[in-house]
Parts: sequence; C-alpha cells; structure tokens
Amino acid sequence: MAFTVSFMANQKTIRWGVIGLGWFGEIHAETLADMPGIELAALCTRRPQRLMEVADRFGVPKRYTDYHELLADPAIDVVGIATHINDHRQIAIDALRSGKHVFLEKPMAPTAADCDEILAAARQAAGFFMVGHICRFDPRVAMAKQAIDEGRIGKIVSMHARRNLSKTIGRAVLDSISALMGDGIHDGDLMLWFSGAKPVSVYAQEIHPGANKFPDGGWAMARLDSGAIAVIESIWHLPESTPYQIDARMEVIGTEGAIYINCGEAGLEMHDGSGNRMPDTFYWPQVFGSRFGILRAEFRYFADCVAEGRRPELITPDESRAAVALLAAAVESSHSGQVVYF
Amino acid sequence: MAFTVSFMANQKTIRWGVIGLGWFGEIHAETLADMPGIELAALCTRRPQRLMEVADRFGVPKRYTDYHELLADPAIDVVGIATHINDHRQIAIDALRSGKHVFLEKPMAPTAADCDEILAAARQAAGFFMVGHICRFDPRVAMAKQAIDEGRIGKIVSMHARRNLSKTIGRAVLDSISALMGDGIHDGDLMLWFSGAKPVSVYAQEIHPGANKFPDGGWAMARLDSGAIAVIESIWHLPESTPYQIDARMEVIGTEGAIYINCGEAGLEMHDGSGNRMPDTFYWPQVFGSRFGILRAEFRYFADCVAEGRRPELITPDESRAAVALLAAAVESSHSGQVVYF
Amino acid sequence: MAFTVSFMANQKTIRWGVIGLGWFGEIHAETLADMPGIELAALCTRRPQRLMEVADRFGVPKRYTDYHELLADPAIDVVGIATHINDHRQIAIDALRSGKHVFLEKPMAPTAADCDEILAAARQAAGFFMVGHICRFDPRVAMAKQAIDEGRIGKIVSMHARRNLSKTIGRAVLDSISALMGDGIHDGDLMLWFSGAKPVSVYAQEIHPGANKFPDGGWAMARLDSGAIAVIESIWHLPESTPYQIDARMEVIGTEGAIYINCGEAGLEMHDGSGNRMPDTFYWPQVFGSRFGILRAEFRYFADCVAEGRRPELITPDESRAAVALLAAAVESSHSGQVVYF
Amino acid sequence: MAFTVSFMANQKTIRWGVIGLGWFGEIHAETLADMPGIELAALCTRRPQRLMEVADRFGVPKRYTDYHELLADPAIDVVGIATHINDHRQIAIDALRSGKHVFLEKPMAPTAADCDEILAAARQAAGFFMVGHICRFDPRVAMAKQAIDEGRIGKIVSMHARRNLSKTIGRAVLDSISALMGDGIHDGDLMLWFSGAKPVSVYAQEIHPGANKFPDGGWAMARLDSGAIAVIESIWHLPESTPYQIDARMEVIGTEGAIYINCGEAGLEMHDGSGNRMPDTFYWPQVFGSRFGILRAEFRYFADCVAEGRRPELITPDESRAAVALLAAAVESSHSGQVVYF
Repeated sequence: MAFTVSFMANQKTIRWGVIGLGWFGEIHAETLADMPGIELAALCTRRPQRLMEVADRFGVPKRYTDYHELLADPAIDVVGIATHINDHRQIAIDALRSGKHVFLEKPMAPTAADCDEILAAARQAAGFFMVGHICRFDPRVAMAKQAIDEGRIGKIVSMHARRNLSKTIGRAVLDSISALMGDGIHDGDLMLWFSGAKPVSVYAQEIHPGANKFPDGGWAMARLDSGAIAVIESIWHLPESTPYQIDARMEVIGTEGAIYINCGEAGLEMHDGSGNRMPDTFYWPQVFGSRFGILRAEFRYFADCVAEGRRPELITPDESRAAVALLAAAVESSHSGQVVYF
Repeated sequence: MAFTVSFMANQKTIRWGVIGLGWFGEIHAETLADMPGIELAALCTRRPQRLMEVADRFGVPKRYTDYHELLADPAIDVVGIATHINDHRQIAIDALRSGKHVFLEKPMAPTAADCDEILAAARQAAGFFMVGHICRFDPRVAMAKQAIDEGRIGKIVSMHARRNLSKTIGRAVLDSISALMGDGIHDGDLMLWFSGAKPVSVYAQEIHPGANKFPDGGWAMARLDSGAIAVIESIWHLPESTPYQIDARMEVIGTEGAIYINCGEAGLEMHDGSGNRMPDTFYWPQVFGSRFGILRAEFRYFADCVAEGRRPELITPDESRAAVALLAAAVESSHSGQVVYF
Repeated sequence: MAFTVSFMANQKTIRWGVIGLGWFGEIHAETLADMPGIELAALCTRRPQRLMEVADRFGVPKRYTDYHELLADPAIDVVGIATHINDHRQIAIDALRSGKHVFLEKPMAPTAADCDEILAAARQAAGFFMVGHICRFDPRVAMAKQAIDEGRIGKIVSMHARRNLSKTIGRAVLDSISALMGDGIHDGDLMLWFSGAKPVSVYAQEIHPGANKFPDGGWAMARLDSGAIAVIESIWHLPESTPYQIDARMEVIGTEGAIYINCGEAGLEMHDGSGNRMPDTFYWPQVFGSRFGILRAEFRYFADCVAEGRRPELITPDESRAAVALLAAAVESSHSGQVVYF
Repeated sequence: MAFTVSFMANQKTIRWGVIGLGWFGEIHAETLADMPGIELAALCTRRPQRLMEVADRFGVPKRYTDYHELLADPAIDVVGIATHINDHRQIAIDALRSGKHVFLEKPMAPTAADCDEILAAARQAAGFFMVGHICRFDPRVAMAKQAIDEGRIGKIVSMHARRNLSKTIGRAVLDSISALMGDGIHDGDLMLWFSGAKPVSVYAQEIHPGANKFPDGGWAMARLDSGAIAVIESIWHLPESTPYQIDARMEVIGTEGAIYINCGEAGLEMHDGSGNRMPDTFYWPQVFGSRFGILRAEFRYFADCVAEGRRPELITPDESRAAVALLAAAVESSHSGQVVYF
C-alpha cells in the first residue's frame, strides 16, 4: 500500500460549496459548517424554499438555485455534489470544467459509460476529483485493509457484505436509486479494494415488495479474477422496529485467516419508551451539536489535499468507476436473469 | 402447521443399530448409549478394528462388518445410517426392504434421482423413514418457524444462512462431500420449510483452495416461487484459530419483520492457554460424560414415533428430497457456470 | 468432580404432584405433562378456581386445595413445591416427613435457620430431597464448571453475574421476594459451585424505585475464602421495551483464563410489529406445544434418581443452604449498611 | 447541558510540549505529530536515551530532561503531562505557575488532597487546565450522556462499568498504579457525569494475584446521593489469549430505559495465525501511519480552546477531583475492609 494520510497544517481556508440539498446534502452542510480550515461558502438546490431553509440554518451567505452560477463563483474552491445520482454525470463534468476541485457523492454515476465521460473530464481538469467512498475512512475498514495488505489472512477466498436498512429509510430513497446500487456500491468498492482483483462475472437477484420505483433489495454474487467469491447483500426493507440504524457487516475469509467487520452494532444500544435503537456512532454521529465521524474525516482528507496541492490517492476515479461497473452489471443481471461477464 | 410433538410414555425399549462409525456415527452411538427407553443394540462398520473400538467403548454386544447381517437381525427395531453419503441410497433401500425403521443422516443422497429410489422403497416399507435434519429440532429454529407460521414477519422476501467451519474440520470431511452440499443441505431444508415455497432457479459458485477432493466452500443463490431470494453460504475454510465451533447463523427478512438466528455464539466463550473457543452447547454438547442437545431430541422423537406406531411428520421424505434437489442443482450450477432452473 | 449423570431406562412411571400453581407452578405442570416416564398425577393450590383451571388444562385427575391431603395420597411418588418462598419451610418439612421424594424450588427458604430445619427433616426422610437450582443443568454453565474443574482457567480471582429482568416481570413478582434474593440465589449458588469456596464477607446495596413490597434490584459483593471476589447483580427494573427475556450473563476470570457465559442472547432475535424480542430458547422454551429446555432436564434428572433409587448428587441440600446463607447475608447487609462476616 | 463543542478556524498554530515519555506519552507525541494547527514542539523525559529515541522518531527539535526548562521555554503554549501519577501534583502545579496551558493525564493525582493543591494552582493560573478524561470524547459515551440529559431513561437507578485488560498490559503498568485507580477513574468520572450525583459511600475489594506492586484488579460499589448504585470493575488480569484490546462496557439502568455501551467489541475482529484479536478502532487506532480516534479529538478540543481563548468546559477540574476522591475512597475501603462515607 503506497499511500499515506498526512495531515500537515493547512495554509489557507478551503471554501466549499454544496450542490444538492436532500437529506444527505444537508448532512454535508452540517458537517462542513464547523470544520476548522473549511468555510461552508455556498449552497445550491433548485428548490428555493429548501435553499433558504438550509442556508439559514447554517448562516451561508451565497445561495444558488442554478449550479452553473455556483461553478462560476471565483470565491469557491471545492464543489461537493450530493444530488440525485442521475444528475451526477452532467454536474460533475461541468464542475470539473469550471476548474473547481470536485467531491462527488457515490455512486459516481448510474453506468460505466457515464463514469467514462466523467473520467475524461477529470483527466483534463485543473482541479482534483474524488468520489466519496466514505467507508474507506472507517478505521474498522482501513485496519482490515492494512491487515490484508500485510498478508495476515493470506489470499482472500470468500467475502460477504451486508448493508441493510429500515424500510422507513427505504421508502424515502427508493425512488432515486435501488438498494443494490445505492448501498452495494460501498461494498463493491471495498471488496475490489481489499482483494486488488477484478470481477470476472456477476449474477444478481432483486426483490421489489415496496411501492417505490426501484427494487427494495438485492443480492449480487461476483467471481473475481483472483478466484474469490464476493457476495453483496443490500436490503432496505427491515421492519420499522429494527434497532439497527444500519445493519452493516462484512466477512472476509482468506486462506490463512478471517476478518469480521461489524458496522451495525457500534457500541451503543438504547432501550427506552420509543423502543430499541443502536444509533450511528461512526459515520456522522451528532454529538453536542456537531457532526463527527468518518464523513468529517473524509472531508478533512479532501480539504487537506486541496490545501496542500496534493492529488487524492486514497480513492482514485478509476476505482470508483470499477465499483459502478460491478454494481451496474449486477443490476443488469437482475433484469436479464443471466450471468453477466466482464 | 399441523403436526405436534407429543412425548407419551413409551411402552417398549427401542433397540437401535447404527451403521457407519465415522466421527458422526460414533456420536450417534455415544448419544444413544444412555438414552432411557433406547438400547444401543448393534453397531456396524466395514472396519473391524474401528468396530471393536467403538463397540467396546459403549459395551455393545452385537457387532457387524456386513450391514446385511445387521438388517437380518430380528432383535433390532431401528437402523440409523451414518455412512458416507455415496452409500446412503443402497443401504437405505436395503434397510427399508428389511422392514426396519430407518433413520438416515442428511443429505438423503447425492442426487434427486437417488432420492427418488429411496422414496419408492420408503413408500412400500413397513417401517418408518426419516432423514436427520437435526436443525428442525433446534428450539431457535423451531421458534422461528412458529413465528413465521403465525405471520409475525409477513411474507418472506430474503433469507441468508451461513454455516462455516474451521479448515481443520474441512480437511477431515472434504474427501466425502463438498461444503456446499454437506452443510448447505441444512439451510436449504430450513429455507424451504420456513417459506413453504419451491425453488424456481439457483446459481452457485464454489471455491477450492484446499487439497481435498471436494470444494472447500460455496455460495448458492436461489429464487423461490414465492418471490423470495434464498442465499446459502457454506465455507469450511475458517482459520485453525477460529473460535467458532461452527459459525452458523440465519437471517430471515419478511415484509413485516425480521428474524435473526445465531447458532454460532451459543452462550459460552472460553479464553485460556489453548486460545479462544465457543464450544457447542446446543447440537450435541458433552456434559458430565453424556451427550445432550438437539441430536438427542431428534433421536428421542424418532424413537417415540416408533414406540407409539406413529408416522414421523416433523420431517417428511419429500422434504428431504427437495433439499437435495436444491443443493444438487446448486452444485450443478457451480460446475456449469449457468443458472439452473427447476 | 465425582458425579455423573447417567440415564438408564427407568423401570416405573414416576407419579408427580405439584404444590403451588403460580406462573412457575403452571410451567412445572406444563413441562411434566408430556415427559415420558413421568405422570403429572396431582395438583394443589389453595385457590379452587386456579386449581380447576390448571388441572383442566393438563387433564390432571387428582386435585387438592390442602397440601396435607396430597402428601397423604399413596399414589404420589414425587412432590414438587413451587409455592411462595415463605411457605417453603413448612411444606418441605411436611412433605419430607410424609415419605415422598421432594423437589423444592429455589431459594430453599428465606433464611439459613429455615434451611437448617429443612435439612434436619431431609436427613431423617425416607425420600430424596433436591432444590431446583436449574442453572446447574444448563450446558453453558455445566461446561464452564467442567473447564474450571479441569484447571483450564487456573484459580478464580473475580466473578460477576448479572440476571436482570423487565419491570413488567418485576411488578408481578416483587411482592413475594426481592430481586437480589430471587435471582441472586442462582448466581450465588453457581459461584460457590464454580469456586468450591466459602464466603468470608458480603456487602450489598439495593434499590427500590418501584411500588412493590420488595426492592427492585440489588448488588452484592462477596469475598470468598479462596481470595476471589464474587459480585452479583439482580435488577428487575429493565424498561418494558427491553428485548431481553432475561439479561443473564456471567464472567469468571481466573489466573490462567476467563469464561464468559451469556444466557441473555440465546440465539434468536425477532424484530416485528410488537417490537424486538430475544425469546427464551434454553430454560423452558415452548416449542410446538411442549416445554423443552433445562427445566425439563432437571425434572428428568430427579425422576431418574427416584426411579433408580439413586440419591441426587448434582445438587446437595447443604449447597442450597449455602446459597441462601450468602444471599440472606447480602440482604442483611443491604438493610444495615454494614459488611456482614460469616 | 450548557456547553457546546465548536470548532472555529484556529488563528494560530498551537505549540505543544509533552512531559513524560512512557508508552502513553509516546502515543501523545505520535497523535500530536500530524494534527493540523498543532506543532509538536518539545519533549521531556528524565531518560536521555528514551528522549532521543522518541524525539528522533517524530523530528522534534526541542528536547529536555528537566521539565523546568521546558516550562521556561517561551516558545511552548501547551504542556501535556503524561508522567507517572505520583509526579502529577508537582509538575502540574509548576506548569500552571509557569503560565502554560496544561493538559494533564488522568487520574489527576493519587489523592483528593493532592488534587486540591492542583486546583488551587489552577485557580490562580493564567493558562487553561484540563484533565484528560478521554472517554468524554467518545461518541458512544457522549450520545449516552445526551440521551440521559434528555430524560430518555428517566432517573438512573443502577450503573455498572467494566474496564478489563490483559495481564500482559497489567504487568507493564501495575508497578505505577492499581487497576482500580488506573481504569476505574474513567468510569467513576463518567458515572458522576451521567448521574449529576455525588457519592454517599463506597465499598471496595481488590485482588492481587500478580507479582507487581499494585493490586491487579478491584471492584467498587458506591451509593450516590441520587439513590443510584454505581459499580466499577477493573481487572487487569485477563489471559494473554484474550481477544479484547480492552473489555470495556457500561450499563446504565434508569426508571424509564436502559443504555448499554460496549467499547470492547468495536467492530473489528481478526482471526489469524497469531490468534484472535479485536483491535482498538476508537481510542487511538493507528490507520495508515497516523493516530486517529478520540484521543485526537480530545487534543483537538483543548487546542481549539487555547487558540480561541475559551476556557474548556467539557471537563472541569472539580469534576476530575471528584473522580479521584471516589476512587481514592474505594482504595481506602479495600485496604480497611470498611465502608467509606463521604
């Protein structure tokens, strides 16, 4: 593993604008709002009412309903894109062409072809480009990667990842993206990262018990060119009573060892009048009014890269494309009923 | 659910003979040896040395190296078959034709065609016939089945079962049977039982990092005619240091609820000079010199059926055949790389 | 450890009468009702309506409102006593004098002095006498005891046991007995059994947030003559939403190893419209209409002892007295605020 | 709860010197070495060889063997003290008098009287003063505190905290401090913080199976003026094979709910050739060459307070003294065998 994460004192304040103010765009804003060395400088959404609401909440002066205007604003260094996935391609390309540094939420785009267009723009761009595969900043995940790279578990032979959510969350998101693409993208990325392998084939099945546009859950089984089997489970149909904020876990079995990551039971369980809950303590926990956790660490990393003029190496655009290609092929398999080969 | 488990006082002692004295045949013998109302009356294996060793251990007077002789012995009521799976078909048919009651270890046979031959013999047999799907006697599993039948989790949409073992165990067994067939048969059976559905298609992948004859692990993904996805994981390649006796768990997600069964972390964990272990406390735990647990409960059930002249309804031969058909198709898919349809 | 549990074929049916039909007396009856070799022959409670209700449920012909009449009935072999703890002493003594075999629920009696009177009667009795310390029949516990006796964890230095219940259960029971005495008796017994030691001193505190007669929870810290610290926690005040049927666990730390017993998370978790639950799968789980688990195993053991004319050695009356003495001293400490010495 | 954690852009680089370079002092240095806005400016230990070793590792130019010289250096803003607890009082007082901002490791000092002297110095000091009760920066803990302050679990009635370590760690530390004082200080602080109560009495027992100067483990039971029972367990005698980095958990039971914090099973488990481990992913995990986690968050907080001229409110010196008073009384009780009243 060649890269290192160094955090040297940043010389300048990074001015960050966020495009897209759905629930996660707002969490972007909330997290950025009190990070030292970062100024939450601008917000953008097509919905004026929502724009005002979020911008007022965080006292952001620059407010745009047309993202082109934000891109034209010279007082912005970084553009964070947290829109609907279908808008990723166009906005990312425009942002890259504007010369800004671009932080794009995952998945990069709906298809590998879309990703290729973004990649082409990124190669010619003056600014940096990174897709927000947040789990790479998770110590549990990163330490697993280290152990794998050190050879502690030998050669990987089987991996399973689960990332299941309450149907309450599912209903709020399933008109934008399927569960398999929406959350499977995390684990597809991690499995390729862990194994250093490429997919040979993938087969998938999805379920669609809900009334939203996209399937509520799916399973994908990939064969990697290393010989490993990689299985991804993403079901956004847990009961409302589920104590899990997210039931996310991964099992990596190698010829010499096994690693178990549990991101669902994150050290805090509450039983009270409202039932049982295991709140998020890792991703973007809200503690004493601020957002902490690995989303913050991810923003910190990108801001430091920008401040230091150092290209982000922890996640490369090619890797982000590979994860999309894997999951898009899984969705294709689910539709056709056939095994898809790469 | 129509059946009930009733335990009325048995009128007679059931005389039980065990054919096959591998590691599990010996556990059969050990369990039967001190069950009230059951007499461990005969043992049979082709290996004379092994026969003497086990028969001496439990003080069993009748000892056979030819199973036909055991079948001809009128002083035996029940024949338990714990041989290599490839011998199941012939021995089971012979045993059924002999008029004995037959308890056959799982899987019923290597193929559905073999099962059909056994089924034909069973239909004409005077004695009872049951395949030992032990997990059905597990309170954790049986209570899940009850909750499902009561409609507590609605309609099942996704199931996942894991049943992973140390490679130490794998090496001892993988010349007889693959991991996918050997342990997947448990979960295939349970998933069909839970859902009351039939498989429409199955796709599978296997890994073969070890030097034994059969693959060390496999994953199967079935689509059921109820619309549910059923995923089976069976990897007999956990590191020697694994604390798990067996890492067995199942997740059943329905439209109204979810059930999580964990048979791997069974309430006892020991950290000592020999490392960390989570001993079996459920299947056939050895406590103060005797074998308890659900293997014993399973034998109890079959013996009571015999004593009372009541046909076993908890597991039917057709159900056992269906589980073989599912797993055999999975193995076929693993070999061909194609989805197999039913 | 000298004793063994042998289960030889019992020659006769054991006729069992139950005195006391509270919630647990009824579970006694339900469990005994379908055990082979045992006949649930008689029931007794002072409440005629309750007597009819339970006796009708299980089809028990002999019904008594005066326990002396049950004791005088020559067609009863075993008397099980599941009454209020305050009635234990007199009924147990009368039962022992009647010549019956006596199975007495824990705790033996409220005080060590009461226990001594029972012990005196037991010494002169024709029948056997055993107090139902059910946890000794728990494979998780028994296997821990075996490992300790084998020296696997060296010399015990610290033990902690928790046995916490929902306040819903607490409210139903706390007019009869305190949490510390009611559930601490289990763990006090196990700790003395595990360590083979005697208490030197004990200090305790109780809490009484509820409106019932006895304190809802308590903590006791004992010093044993082996040098070990033994800490008992028993809180019957978990929220109504608790998923635990019982949050019961024990940690035993020795000079060479540690053992962790978890009886709270027993392998089954259900999330549905009624919330989250972890049902009992071990103590007396109700599966397909019958009661299984270690309560059944405990009755089996006592019935076999009676059938074979073999004095029960797994739990001795002196041990049961020692557990009462420990917990009664803890309650005394809680009242006085002083350390109590033995 | 009145305080907030705000992270405004810091105007200046904070120059930090560390006194004491045991294993934890080195982790201080390692963590500070790559924090933006902080300069690890000086190191101090009496051992010249150790000084050179650690200072070389992190490229620290200013190196002192006499802490008075470090205190006299005008190019240092913050002094971090990570020495032996017995040296805390004198160094902290000298540091406070020097005008530096002082970050002192926990426990504040061995006795409440020592704490009072430090408090007196702190009250007259120009710089800020904070004791490093790191757990307050743990999201799992902080979110529990929030829930308690929101009234979600009602009034606390019982608390238990465990913080157990391998005897390997114990042997390395037990000549400096006892387990009960060394780790119990964390939980004593948290319990007083959670409950907002004061101790009325405390009783404790310790065990001393090891060969080091201080007892290897201890239990303390306090009664708080709110009526709650608070029980602290700290055993540094787990077997070498323990998978726990630290087996740390806390249970808080209130009249309306319960909170369970598990800091021992922190989401990552590795089984490999070296056995089983659950590495630290929270406190100061080493990821890709840097130290992350809540130690870093704690330093960040103090540095920001200094940069902004804002007195630290998250942990007050009076609170740190109260935790010492509780644990020192527990140790006194352990020695005398008597209950100690406040």
